[in-house]
Parts: sequence; structure tokens; C-alpha cells
Amino acid sequence: MIAVYYAIIYGVIVISAAIIGYLMWYVFKQSKGTEDMQSISNAIKEGASAFLKRQYKTIAWIALISLVIICIATYFGRIAENASSSEALSYAIHTGIAFITGAFCSALSGFLGMYMSVNSNIRCADGAKKGLNHALQIAFKGGAVTGLAVTTLSLLGVTTLFLIYGGYTGGNIKEAPSLIVGFGFGASLVALFAQLGGGIYTKAADVGADLVGKVEAGIPEDDPRNPAVVADLVGDNVGDCAGRGADLFESTAAENIGAMIIGVGLYPVFGVAGILFPLVARALGIIASIIGILTVKVKDENSDPMKSLTKGFFITAIIMAVVFLFNVKLMLSGTNGSVNWIALYGCALIGILLSIVFVFITDYYTSYRRRPVLEMAKSCKTGTATNIITGVSMGMESVGLPVLFISLAIFGSYNLGRLALGDVSGISDPGIFGTAIATMGMLSTCAYVLAMDTFGPITDNAGGIIEMSGAPEEVRNTTDKLDACGNTTKALTKGYAVGSAALATFLLFSAYIDEVKKLIGLDASANYSVDIGKPSVFIASLIGACVVFLFSSTAIRAVGKAAQYVIVEVRRQFKEIPGIMKGESKPEYGTCVDIVTKGALREMVIPGLIVVLIPILVGILLGKEAAAGYLMVVTIAGVILALFLNNSGGAWDNTKKYIELGNYGGKGSDAHKAGVVGDTVGDPFKDTAGPSLHVLIKLTSTITLVFIVLFFAA
Amino acid sequence: MIAVYYAIIYGVIVISAAIIGYLMWYVFKQSKGTEDMQSISNAIKEGASAFLKRQYKTIAWIALISLVIICIATYFGRIAENASSSEALSYAIHTGIAFITGAFCSALSGFLGMYMSVNSNIRCADGAKKGLNHALQIAFKGGAVTGLAVTTLSLLGVTTLFLIYGGYTGGNIKEAPSLIVGFGFGASLVALFAQLGGGIYTKAADVGADLVGKVEAGIPEDDPRNPAVVADLVGDNVGDCAGRGADLFESTAAENIGAMIIGVGLYPVFGVAGILFPLVARALGIIASIIGILTVKVKDENSDPMKSLTKGFFITAIIMAVVFLFNVKLMLSGTNGSVNWIALYGCALIGILLSIVFVFITDYYTSYRRRPVLEMAKSCKTGTATNIITGVSMGMESVGLPVLFISLAIFGSYNLGRLALGDVSGISDPGIFGTAIATMGMLSTCAYVLAMDTFGPITDNAGGIIEMSGAPEEVRNTTDKLDACGNTTKALTKGYAVGSAALATFLLFSAYIDEVKKLIGLDASANYSVDIGKPSVFIASLIGACVVFLFSSTAIRAVGKAAQYVIVEVRRQFKEIPGIMKGESKPEYGTCVDIVTKGALREMVIPGLIVVLIPILVGILLGKEAAAGYLMVVTIAGVILALFLNNSGGAWDNTKKYIELGNYGGKGSDAHKAGVVGDTVGDPFKDTAGPSLHVLIKLTSTITLVFIVLFFAA
Repeated sequence: MIAVYYAIIYGVIVISAAIIGYLMWYVFKQSKGTEDMQSISNAIKEGASAFLKRQYKTIAWIALISLVIICIATYFGRIAENASSSEALSYAIHTGIAFITGAFCSALSGFLGMYMSVNSNIRCADGAKKGLNHALQIAFKGGAVTGLAVTTLSLLGVTTLFLIYGGYTGGNIKEAPSLIVGFGFGASLVALFAQLGGGIYTKAADVGADLVGKVEAGIPEDDPRNPAVVADLVGDNVGDCAGRGADLFESTAAENIGAMIIGVGLYPVFGVAGILFPLVARALGIIASIIGILTVKVKDENSDPMKSLTKGFFITAIIMAVVFLFNVKLMLSGTNGSVNWIALYGCALIGILLSIVFVFITDYYTSYRRRPVLEMAKSCKTGTATNIITGVSMGMESVGLPVLFISLAIFGSYNLGRLALGDVSGISDPGIFGTAIATMGMLSTCAYVLAMDTFGPITDNAGGIIEMSGAPEEVRNTTDKLDACGNTTKALTKGYAVGSAALATFLLFSAYIDEVKKLIGLDASANYSVDIGKPSVFIASLIGACVVFLFSSTAIRAVGKAAQYVIVEVRRQFKEIPGIMKGESKPEYGTCVDIVTKGALREMVIPGLIVVLIPILVGILLGKEAAAGYLMVVTIAGVILALFLNNSGGAWDNTKKYIELGNYGGKGSDAHKAGVVGDTVGDPFKDTAGPSLHVLIKLTSTITLVFIVLFFAA
Repeated sequence: MIAVYYAIIYGVIVISAAIIGYLMWYVFKQSKGTEDMQSISNAIKEGASAFLKRQYKTIAWIALISLVIICIATYFGRIAENASSSEALSYAIHTGIAFITGAFCSALSGFLGMYMSVNSNIRCADGAKKGLNHALQIAFKGGAVTGLAVTTLSLLGVTTLFLIYGGYTGGNIKEAPSLIVGFGFGASLVALFAQLGGGIYTKAADVGADLVGKVEAGIPEDDPRNPAVVADLVGDNVGDCAGRGADLFESTAAENIGAMIIGVGLYPVFGVAGILFPLVARALGIIASIIGILTVKVKDENSDPMKSLTKGFFITAIIMAVVFLFNVKLMLSGTNGSVNWIALYGCALIGILLSIVFVFITDYYTSYRRRPVLEMAKSCKTGTATNIITGVSMGMESVGLPVLFISLAIFGSYNLGRLALGDVSGISDPGIFGTAIATMGMLSTCAYVLAMDTFGPITDNAGGIIEMSGAPEEVRNTTDKLDACGNTTKALTKGYAVGSAALATFLLFSAYIDEVKKLIGLDASANYSVDIGKPSVFIASLIGACVVFLFSSTAIRAVGKAAQYVIVEVRRQFKEIPGIMKGESKPEYGTCVDIVTKGALREMVIPGLIVVLIPILVGILLGKEAAAGYLMVVTIAGVILALFLNNSGGAWDNTKKYIELGNYGGKGSDAHKAGVVGDTVGDPFKDTAGPSLHVLIKLTSTITLVFIVLFFAA
């Protein structure tokens, strides 16, 4: 059977590659529009490429240093744990290779996201002249390339490493999953800096352009006279596309690895099928996503593109609900048919439902058709302060329902898992396998969701290009419609990303505990508890929650600092090149791009170091159990703060949009001014700190797993 | 010896009562100034009394319902745990009486704080005419009455209950501390609603008065033409005085009870001295505070009153550092001299140092002489949005150092505790006694700190009275100086209150674990671990962090809602009584006071219920271990969010003040407008949600302790 599983996985990878090829061909064959448009698009392309090149150089250095540290730490850590020298060396080399592969694939995912985005935006802009559906097709197919490529790359990387590390030839099959933990760490390290750097870039450019353009010079958004406008458009590509691509690459990798390690614990029950199940499920999810992607279209100019995108999501989810039925039955009935596979199927359904619920909740808290944003818009009537207060309060409220449903999902899937495997002896915690399957269920639609997400910046950019090239009103209406839809999909993806990060981390935590047991020589059936009542664990937990706040603080501050550089530069250009404001001279877009690039890369270092170094320090100083407590509370605090930041930011954004639709006085009114301030405050919340927290959560769990050998056994 | 301990405690209570009498005599013999001033003061007095009366009526109902539930729950819970019917009845009655006593004493503390404040403010205002020192003496002595009364009342209540419940006559001495847990719960329940209702009141009046007065009508702060101005002044008394009085009453009670329960566990080592030590330490702390209080004075008009207040604090701390040396040596050398009492003395020093460190850190993050506020003030130059972003970032940063020092204090005192008691067999966790002593050290200066805190609203009110009665410039300068100093002391007290709440909760957590062990029949030497890796515990923890956010959300929103009532009423008065703005007619202050009162009481119900009901539900549904996880993570998230809210709010307040001193354009500039918005946003953060979180933390621990019998043994 094992050959069949691999055949399915690699077969899907080939199919996916073919579809990616078709989608790219479709996008690239479209017209690139007028020369004006192309010159703007090229400026964006160059800026984005330049940023990514510089950013990857920095990340490469960080990764290389980390590689050396990991290899040395793993080697000596294993020696200290009484491994032989050759065993330790083998461990170190395997982990190192996995790390570098993960880092490379993650970087490649980010690059692909950016590449497709900068090439689709201009074609989408030009396509808007031919109608809504045409523009939608280009933007969404461009996004779909990223979605499929990222997910497929993750599957390819994990499967191939597993295969090479002994995942086929029996003997080593139970060791192999632990060896590819490095893949997850490499992926999350790159994802952290990609998301952080990109997030700082995009908001520094945005805030800087707005403050100096709209507020000081009084010119509208996306006005070509603003020297920072190209940097702003570049930001959408490097932040939302490259950043989120790396983020979800990492989620899928973390889920796969965590679930495979849990599968190892259940080897007596499922054999190798339990370890390969996560990979097969991912493969089938890619097929479902492809079908969902191909159904997306709108009938006429008055259709709501959001409805069509949501329909595609539901189709993907329903297909997966059916596919899991066969998948679970065939692979997880147990080697002797002893397992209640229907209960396990229930777990998969819980995961799929959770992804849908998260989309609805996020929509509720950020859409301007619902109570929260409407209440915030109303509060703008009494000024900025009440808008901020109401927004903070709404953001805090918005953590309630997601937490409730995550809790229900964990509780339900864990108990179904116990029900399915309860009478299996020799495993301390069989219920966690149920939670693993729920996580797979949630992440099975990942490729589709990521396609929706990348769709956002493409349409945003298309709108910007149309605006800057002075296209006619009706074309603008088309891109505005797509842009509004893209804003919604971006917000929804963030909700999805938080939820899946929480579940994936819960798996990695369980993998961490398994690893601890192995290291301290406990049997797999023994209990190892992380007692938060112990002072060392309590302190580590307290520090964990604190780090989440410190990280967010530095990430938010970084945006402010980098934005200052932009403001200074734009002021200089306005002063030294007097023709700009009259529209006679072209501003120097390039220097702005350059300055934000440097600023963002400089400012991403401190928050990045906090996240990487503190868990290692906590583990070394306070021990393995304390590190586990740290990890758990980082997850709890990180999920909650990310929800707060993402949702309040999204709600402020739409509060402003709602007022701009003509409510409470519309554009230019006092309420609008209050709305604009709220939107600016929310920018670094929802696009820098919030999404970086998703990565922080997962990075913390892979980092503790990789460095566990250095933590003393307290 | 036991008689000597009681003699010391009751002796100190008598001395403190005498000093309170002297201080009251001093305050009340001062002149009440002109009739104008008296009429304002009387309006404040009436408003505050009316609010407290109505609030206490509501709280009385809540307390009565709780009493019935507690008695029934305790009775049947004990029966279910196999106690005999008469045992269960005795438990229920004892717990019920303790609860009512605690609730009554807490309410009395709040009332005293309010009563002294409204009677000192006018005398302080009039005293300002005679010079800075005279005004300072009145305000600080008025505050000292509250500080001493609250602390002494807590000591009197706990000691007397303990004595009655068998704390003298041997047999029952080890049971008695658990029976007075109800005292802590009663105190915290009242404290929660006092702080919440008062906090909503004070900021609803403040925000409402500002928005409609300063922003809409364009009249200055504390202008007598504003109908909400008296409500605003009333708010300072019911929020800061009554609220914080109940808050710290509760901290001292929680610390005493938690430490006594831990002392019971160490009965073999210390005998009854270990149980009575916390009470004796508190008594000696009151004496030290009295000495500190009596040293406070300024030399001339140009002196900085803050320096004098800080000096008094240091004197109190130093005295305690010396007193603890004898206290620890005499009481904690162990029944056979086996204990390393010097290590235990080290714990006390750690606690005293922690209180000083907290004062410095809070000062750093909220004073306008330091980097954070200066940076925020600078960010006001680029507008409101950057001020909010910088403030949020600073507030998040400000959690770092306090968490570091709390961690160090717990780590250090725990390990010193183990060092001191390490070779004592039969106790699973002797280190926690070290942490208990550190908590006593920190809270030994409580009476003094509370005096400084209550000083704040007295001077604030004095300033308001002077402003409204149109007193000469130099008198205003004097009250302004005291008011600025009062703002600082209020901010510092909040830092102190958070730190002590964190430590006190850690003790109550340990008491909870002891109680669990007793209930499930584990020996005192057995380990009971709270495994955060278990799904039920993880879910409870996740919900715990979520509740902290939901509570803050509802508390902040409550301010907004209640402020709306004020705005509507003030607009009505301006419209219907046209003489107000011309200064010809007197506004109807009373109706505003009435409306805020009703609004605040209505809005405090939802956040209050969240805090009370959810931990009980979590315990009943998920079990004892999960409830413990809930408690720990509520503490962690609560401490961190409280620090964020208190410090960001305080920093925004001082950012505005710094600009008003003439920086960045001074009053009326754009930077000032940005500063005003920041200040308004910070108001509900620092005066409603933040301080209520201190109480939430402690209430959660007392509630889980009281209702533990209802939690199934998972």
C-alpha cells in the first residue's frame, strides 16, 4: 500500500504543477495595457524584486548563522544525551539539511507569491476594461498560482525529505518524522522575517504616503504626484503576498510534521498509513482546491465577486467533506480494523466546519454590513477618541467567539479521537490524533484560501495602476469592486490563518512532549505533565505572554520608525523638485522604495531576535517543562492578541470605507477624519503585528522542538 | 507565645485607631473656606454619597444572592465529598459568615475612602491659600486616614474571624484559615463591583464632560458652566478612592489568607507562629506606615511635594526592612531552630525591593521626564494616529520590565524558601512559603501607598473647587502642583496594585492546590500537577485569557455607553436653559450626577457577571485541574493587560500635560489636539478596565477556592 500512497501524493504534485502551468499561461497571455500602465507596473515590479532580493540576502545570513548553531547544538546536545558520536553527527546533518530545505522552500513560496502578483496586477488592470469577469479571472487565477504553488511545494518538500530520510524502507520510518522537524523550523524562520519585513514595509510606505500626501500636501490616495505611492503599491506585494505565502507554507508544513510525529506514536494501530495520512490528505485537498478554483466566475457586471469566491470556497469544503470519508475509511480503519473510523471522520468534519465558522466570524467583525463596524462608524460622529475606544473594545470582544470555537473543536476532536482509539493500549494520549485530523480538515482548503488571499493585493495594485494612469470612470468602478472584495478576502484569510496556527501549534506541542519523553527515557505510554503550578513553568508562561506583547510593541513601533524615513524623504522631494506638485516633474519613486526597503530590513531585526532568542534562553535557564509552558502560553496569548489586532484593524479599515460611501457626512466630514485616524492606527495592527504573530506562534513551537536537546531536564 | 502575637496585633489595631482619630481631628478642624467653595464641595459630597448609596444597594443584592448560592453550594458540595451533614452545615455557615463579613468590611473601606476624600478636598482647597505645606498636610493626612483604616480593617477582620473560628484554642487552628477564604471572596466581590461601577462612573463623567464641554461648547475643563462638571469631580472620589480602597483591602486580605493556608502546611515546622506570621507582619507594617506618614512635609513653596512623598515611602520601606529582621528571626526560626531564617528574611527583602522597583518602572513609563512619554509627545507632531500608535506600542513595551521583576521575585523567593526549608520532610512544596513572605514584604507598605493614592483625588478635587470658585492665580498654582503630584501617585499605586495582585494570586493558587489535594484525598506531601498539555486544561486556559479580553472590552464599552447618556443630558441642558452658557443660570448638576449613577450601575452588570460566572462554569464543566489552569492564565493575561492599560493610559495623560506645558506648540496647537485624543482614549484604559483587572485576578482565585467543591474531580 505504501507505494500507492506515494503514487497518489506525487501524482497530485504532477497534476498541480500542470494546473499551475495552465494558470500561468492564462495570466501571461493577457494584454499588459498602455505604456503608461506598464511603466507604473514595471516600477512596482522592480521595487518588489529589489526589496525581496535585499530581504532574502539578510534572511540568508540569519539562516546560515542559525544553521551553524543548529548543527552544533544538535550535535553536542545529542552527545550530552548519551548518543554516540556518529549518531549525533547523523542527527545534526539530517536536521541541518531539513532546515535549509525548509528555509529555501519557504523563501521560494514568498518569491512566487510576489512574482505572480506583480505580473497579474497590470493584466488585471487592463482586463478590467473588458469587464468584471475578465478582470476577476486574471486576478483570481494569478492568486491561484500562488495558492497551489505554496501548498504543493510544502507537500513536495515534506514528502521528499521523509522519503529520503527513510520513509519508505521500513526500518527508519518511525525516526524520519522527527528528523524533518528542521524543515518546519527553517520554513518558520524565513516566514517570520518575510512576514515581519514585508509587513513593516507595506505599512511604513502606506502610513508614510498617507501622512505626508493626504494630510500634509492634501493630494488623494494613489496620486502619481506622491513620491511614496509606488512604494505603497510595492508594499502590498511584499507584505500580503510574500508574507502570507510564507505564513501558510509554514502552517501546512507544521501541521504535516506534527501530525506525522503523532502518527508515529500510533504505529502499532495504523502502521505506516497513520504517518502518511497527513500527506495524502493534503494531496487530496489540493485536488479539491483546484476544482474549487476552476468554478470561480461572475455572470455579469452587477454580480458580487465575493459571492462567487465564497461559492468556490464552499465547493472546495464540500468536496473535502466527501473525500475525507473515503480517505479516512481506507487509511485509518486500523491494521486489524479495530478503529472506530467514523469518529475520526467526525474530526475531519470538525476541522472543515471550523474553517467555515472562522470565515463567518471574521466577516461579522470586519464587514460594514454588521453591528460592530456600524457601531464604530456611529461612534465617529463624536470624534476620533470614541472611534478608537469603540474599536479597541470591539477588537477585544472579537476574540470571544473564535476562542469558543477553537475550544469546542479541540474538545470535540480530542474526545472523538479517544472514542476512536480508546481501547488501544500503549499510547498515553490517543485523543490528540483526533485533533490532528481536525487540523488537517481545517487546512485541507488551504490552497483555495491562499488563492483568495493573494487575489487581494493583485486587485489592490490593479486599482492603483488604473488610478495612476487616469483610466475612465467605469473601469475604476470595476477595479474598485474587485478591490473591496480583495480587502474582505484578505481579512478572512487572516482569521483562517490564526485558527489553523492555533491547531497546528497544539499538534507541535504534543510532538514536543513526545520528544521530551524520548529524551528523558520515558515510555510512550507514560504521562509527562507540564505543571503550570511550578514556579519555573509559571514564570516561563508569564514571560511567554509578555514576549507576545513585546514583539507586537516592537513590530508596531518599527512601522512608525520606517514611516518617518518615508516622510522625511517625501518632504525633501516636494521641496527640492518643485515641479512635482504641479504635475510637471516625475517624483523619484525609486529612492522612496529604496528608503523603505532599508528601513524595513533594519527594523525587523529586533522583533525577530526577541522571538528567536527568548524561547531558547527560557529553555536553557528554566528547563524542558518550563519551555513547554512558555510554548503553550505564547500560543494562547498570541492567538488572542492576533485576533484582537487583525479584527480591530480590519474593522477600522471598513469603518472608514463605510463613511466614504456617504454615511455620517461622507468624505471630508469630521466623522470621516475620525475614520481615517482609526484606519491608520489599524494599519500596523492588521498588516504587521497581527500576521507576524501567527508566524511567531508556529516558530516558537518549531524552535523549542529543534533546540530541545539544549534544555536541561527539570 | 500565641497570646503575645495576638497582643501585638490588637495593640497595633488600637494604636492605628488612635492615629486615625488624630488625623481625622486634624483634617476636620481645618476651615472649609468661602460659601462658594462649600456649595461646590457639598454638591460633590451629595453626589458621591448618593452614588455610593445606590451602588451599595445593588451590590448588597448581588452579595445576598451570592451568599445563598455559596451556602447551598458549600453544603451540597461537601456532602458530595462525603462530609457528614453536620460537618457540611458547619462549613457552609462558617463560609457564609466569613463572606458577609468580608463583603461588609470591603464596602466599609470604600465608604471610608470616599467619606474622607469628600471632606478633605474642600479643606485642602482652602488650605492652599495658606501655602503648599498646609494644603499638602490636609490632603495627605486625609489620604492617610483611608490608607490606615483600610489596612487596619482588613487585619481586624481576618484576625478576629480566625480567632473566633478556632485560631486560639489549638484543636481547630489548622482548619480555621480555610474557613475564612469566604472573607476574601466577599471582599473581592464587593471590590470588583466597587471598582467597576466607580471606574465606569468616573470616566463616563470625565469623557462625557470633555466631549460635550471642551469639544462641542468650547469651554475649558472644570468650567462651572458645564452641567457635567460636578459629576466629573464626584467620579474621582467614587472611582479612585472607593474603588482603590476596596481593591487594596482585598489584596491584603487575599495575601493574609493565602499565606495562612500555606502556614498551615508548615505547621510541623513553625507551629502556630507560621500561621500567625502574616498577621503580625501586617501589624508591624501598619506601624511603619504610620511613622512614614508622619514624616511627610515640604519646607517651602518651591519644594516638590512628590519628593517628600517618595521620602516617606522609603522611610516606611527601610523601617520594614529592619523590622522584618527581628520578626522573621523570632517567629520563623522553626520550633526546633532548624530553619535557615536568614533565607526567609531575604524573601521579605525581595518583596520590599519589588515594591520599590515597581514604583520606579511605573514612573519611567508614565512620567513626562522620561523617554516613553517624550517620544509620544514628539509623535503628536505628525497627528493623532501616530500618537495612538506610539502609545499602544509603549504600553505593550511597558509590560516587559514588571514581568521580568515579578519573575525574578518569584524565582528568588521560591528558591530561598526551598533553601530555608529544604530538608523539612512531609511538605510537597516548601518554597512557596518564601514567595508568601515576599508578598508580605511587598504589601507591608500598603497603608502608606494607599495614603499616597487617596491623596490623588483629594488634590484633584481641591483643584476643581479652586477653579470653579475663581480663586486667585497663586492659589491655583499651589493646587496645580499638588494635582500633578497626585496624578503621579495614582499611577504609581496602580503599578504597585498589579504587582501585589500577581503575587497574592500565586499564593491563592497554591492554597487552591492544597485544597484540591485535601478534597481528592491526597497527602500534603503528594504532588498534584496542573498539566496545561491536557486539552481540558489548555481549553480552560485559552478561555481564561479570552475572558480577560472580554471583560476589558465590556468595561471599556460601558464607559462609552454611560458617557453617551451624559452627552445627551448636557446637550439638553444647554438647549433648554439658555442662560447657562452666559453664566446667568446655574446648570442642573444633580441630574447629571443622577444620570451617570444610573448609567454606571447598569453598565457594570455584564462585565461583573462574566467574571463571576465563567470560572464557576469552567470548573463545573471541565473540572478542578482545568479551573486551576484557568486561574493561572487569567492571572498571567490579567497582569499583562492591566499593565498595558494602566501604563498606556497614564502615558497618554502625561503626554497631553507635557504639551500643555508649552512644548510642540502648547495648548491649542495641532499636537495638543492629538494629545487630547490620546488622553481621552487612555481614560477608560487606566481608570476603568485596568484597575478592575487587578480585582478580577484576585476574585478569580477566591471564587475558584470557594466553589471548588462543585468542580468534578478530573
